[in-house]
Amino acid sequence: MSLNEFELVDLYFKAQAQTSDSDVILGIGDDAALIQPPATGEVLAFSVDTLVADIHFHATDPAHAIGYKALAVNFSDLAAMGATPRYVLLALTLPTLDEAWLAEFCRGFFTLLKEHRAILIGGDITHGPLSITVQVTGTVPRTQALTRAGAHVGDVIYVTGTLGDAAAALTARGAQCGPLVQRLQYPTARINWGLALRGHAHAMIDISDGLLADLGHICEQSKVGARINVDRLPLSSVLRNEMDYASALNLALTGGDDYELCFTIAPTQADWLQQTAQTLNCPVQCIGEITAGSGIDLVTETGESWPEPTKSGYQHF
Amino acid sequence: MSLNEFELVDLYFKAQAQTSDSDVILGIGDDAALIQPPATGEVLAFSVDTLVADIHFHATDPAHAIGYKALAVNFSDLAAMGATPRYVLLALTLPTLDEAWLAEFCRGFFTLLKEHRAILIGGDITHGPLSITVQVTGTVPRTQALTRAGAHVGDVIYVTGTLGDAAAALTARGAQCGPLVQRLQYPTARINWGLALRGHAHAMIDISDGLLADLGHICEQSKVGARINVDRLPLSSVLRNEMDYASALNLALTGGDDYELCFTIAPTQADWLQQTAQTLNCPVQCIGEITAGSGIDLVTETGESWPEPTKSGYQHF
Repeated sequence: MSLNEFELVDLYFKAQAQTSDSDVILGIGDDAALIQPPATGEVLAFSVDTLVADIHFHATDPAHAIGYKALAVNFSDLAAMGATPRYVLLALTLPTLDEAWLAEFCRGFFTLLKEHRAILIGGDITHGPLSITVQVTGTVPRTQALTRAGAHVGDVIYVTGTLGDAAAALTARGAQCGPLVQRLQYPTARINWGLALRGHAHAMIDISDGLLADLGHICEQSKVGARINVDRLPLSSVLRNEMDYASALNLALTGGDDYELCFTIAPTQADWLQQTAQTLNCPVQCIGEITAGSGIDLVTETGESWPEPTKSGYQHF
Repeated sequence: MSLNEFELVDLYFKAQAQTSDSDVILGIGDDAALIQPPATGEVLAFSVDTLVADIHFHATDPAHAIGYKALAVNFSDLAAMGATPRYVLLALTLPTLDEAWLAEFCRGFFTLLKEHRAILIGGDITHGPLSITVQVTGTVPRTQALTRAGAHVGDVIYVTGTLGDAAAALTARGAQCGPLVQRLQYPTARINWGLALRGHAHAMIDISDGLLADLGHICEQSKVGARINVDRLPLSSVLRNEMDYASALNLALTGGDDYELCFTIAPTQADWLQQTAQTLNCPVQCIGEITAGSGIDLVTETGESWPEPTKSGYQHF
């Protein structure tokens, strides 16, 4: 006999969301969850992101990957503030109540949730075209929250990991492109880097719409410009093997969905950053510097100008 | 020239979400909003609800009503906890970027938001089938939050307003049914009643799926039963004129979307409740009592058994 909506919620969500966290006064199962606020000095970070089938993922992607990514893209927003993930609400719109799909979705979702010791405190399941909205709440010491507005002229610009892989997965073909698809379907929210950069970075953003678009937000909100050395952009070997160098650079500049962090920091922190990269087992790469003025200049290692790619960030409509 | 997504967000959301609330450290426009936690003794109440086009509303309904209702159903969850609405995140999935529609949607949304002095702190706009997910955060003194689990044997059961109107709007025809459509499209979140009942009510829920289904949740979570006198169910004169008495009672028992509050309270509070109803200009009606055991018995004023309606609450799938 198939289970109804309430039984499925109990089985797949309520049971897995059990917690001994004493700050959760009341979890799933009432009109609202009740949460004890954080200690003095900490503030709350709130974010929400929706993934829509056949816009942000393919409806036929593995349900496990969809569950993982729906949470990862939200955790990435908290990482970009330097916040620790704490509480999650899940609003799930499903065309059918397919128990096997839901079980796999939850397996992906809870794998990442538990990795970060965050807690599902509530949600909503509705009937309609497949779409997932996740709301996350994190905490961060008030004086250490990292915004888009703190970049200084003379800061250097870093990115974590490699760029362009997720975008390449959309067009890549062949057996060797598995790692690219992995990057697209299972993005890593750089929570550890976000926490490490508290008190060090000056401005930060996660790269969801493409480096140029997202670094552009830092420039606008910090009222500065930037110069990027395109030959310093971190490219994975898989991406390099998949296409010519110029195409790879253009994907690194404009491709969305990488969910790496882009941040600005004083040049004196270079050694500390490389030590931290070893500790966290995730590289960072200096790709340029913050300049007076506005806009982003692209140059090569030899100082020549690099043409601005035609697609500058994901357009949602 | 038509505006792009970012310009529309600035015009319709960011500009209207400006606030002087010092607890909002950082509002719309970064990776996450930053909020100062509430004072000692207060806890946070979190809820999320999705409205999907042609499931929860008609895609052709006035955009003003859709914006209003998307927020009202969420505020209703806070009302049911006795919480004050504070912060709102809006995740909007739109098939097209129609500026006229968006302007009307925002007019409805912000009318209700500002009425309760709540603040829009962030959101997400995505492309896809029309759907609106709203996440609300409220605050309530820890010792006064009202859950579904506090009903005692001997409590009396009350509901605010009238029942069945919203469900009747789905089938009603003719010029006289305007007030029913108003109830369906512009539900009133009973925030004032929620606040007034702090320290008075023992258990509370909002009626979104139908009285029997929602009172059933109170009974299950409080481990009690209930007896309802169907002749005491508050029916509007419009509903009474629209159909026969038995049909009206059945809608009052099973119709969803009324968003009235159902609560249990000591019988000694009857006078205080009627005085408060006058102050708040919204009636309450005693409809029965909490009993030992489980399940809900339906009886008439003369003590006869009333047959259980076939539809007992909205089934989502």
